[in-house]
Amino acid sequence: MILFEDVQRYIDKLNYLSKVEDEDILNQMEEFAQKEGFPIVGRSVGRFLYLITKLKNPKLIVEVGSGYGYSAYWFAKAISKGKVVLTDYNQDNLDKARIFLSKAGLIEKVEIRLGNGVEIAKDYKNIDILFFDHEKAKYLDSILMLKDNLNSGGLVIADNTLWHGKVLEEAPDRQTKKIKEFNEYMFSSPEFFTTLIPLRDGLILSVKV
Amino acid sequence: MILFEDVQRYIDKLNYLSKVEDEDILNQMEEFAQKEGFPIVGRSVGRFLYLITKLKNPKLIVEVGSGYGYSAYWFAKAISKGKVVLTDYNQDNLDKARIFLSKAGLIEKVEIRLGNGVEIAKDYKNIDILFFDHEKAKYLDSILMLKDNLNSGGLVIADNTLWHGKVLEEAPDRQTKKIKEFNEYMFSSPEFFTTLIPLRDGLILSVKV
Repeated sequence: MILFEDVQRYIDKLNYLSKVEDEDILNQMEEFAQKEGFPIVGRSVGRFLYLITKLKNPKLIVEVGSGYGYSAYWFAKAISKGKVVLTDYNQDNLDKARIFLSKAGLIEKVEIRLGNGVEIAKDYKNIDILFFDHEKAKYLDSILMLKDNLNSGGLVIADNTLWHGKVLEEAPDRQTKKIKEFNEYMFSSPEFFTTLIPLRDGLILSVKV
Repeated sequence: MILFEDVQRYIDKLNYLSKVEDEDILNQMEEFAQKEGFPIVGRSVGRFLYLITKLKNPKLIVEVGSGYGYSAYWFAKAISKGKVVLTDYNQDNLDKARIFLSKAGLIEKVEIRLGNGVEIAKDYKNIDILFFDHEKAKYLDSILMLKDNLNSGGLVIADNTLWHGKVLEEAPDRQTKKIKEFNEYMFSSPEFFTTLIPLRDGLILSVKV
């Protein structure tokens, strides 16, 4: 447990006061997640990613672990000049992402690539926003492999860093231990300035110094 | 109640893994808050303000309600070219702010003004970040008076928007009602894109469209 449930409900209610142009497609994506039990970042985090992207005005966003494009929707919607690279192991997910992002008129802003997201991300230099939502145990290795591909002032955003509150357990499992190691690395490394935002499952936001 | 206590403790612990150059002054400011029971945004929100400022790279930050300069410390530390305007009703608070910010080597980056923060803020055009931490019942009137002073793409950051969880009560008091009205306005106004971050007492982050 991270946030009290009625606090999350209050924030959710506020979110729906805000009119989004293509509410239909967004609803379809969220209903799909609900129906299939597919983990997505959800409306609160999605809106936050949009706002952060507006502030940062990035040219290149790379996602490691895109699923069917829910977070990419928010990034692509917020980016003015630049692109979002989606990666996923699963062709089905990426096909769905292509359909949703086409419907939302965002397909020109994205590049969709099948395979290992970390390996694909290595192809890009000067990444402005690097988004992690892949296998949680791999976050630490991934940032060590990719930090030189980040621009100076570049931003790392990592989802699930409170891992349903498991990071608080006295005897955490292996996966949780790896997440804790990632968090500790991001906060203690002199190469990054890091905050952890308790939105949904915990987002790390970290600027490369 | 907003966040589960052990989650806040975990985030706090991570914060202290991060070395800050002038840790001494920061500790003095935090100890003063502790001793005097002075409400400050605290380390988690402070670090978040720093990160947001780094992303936004603003020229002008105006604070409505600065107290003795704790939030201004983080803003001023993060700003590269530009200034932070501090306002407060209380001369003692501002004197303390002057001492702390001088010690931290940040005094050249700030302007310190005594009086009604909303009236003072009206003197500035093209505000990039407008920070609200004054009388909570006045947030809504204040944004209505000041929104034209914000730059396009300018950011409003308002503290205490979950008001110790009182926004969830069935029969909220007058002050809480006014905060709820402010939140609803920020989310429903087509002039802003708004998110609410459950850090400490709830921060509204809102970009002028």
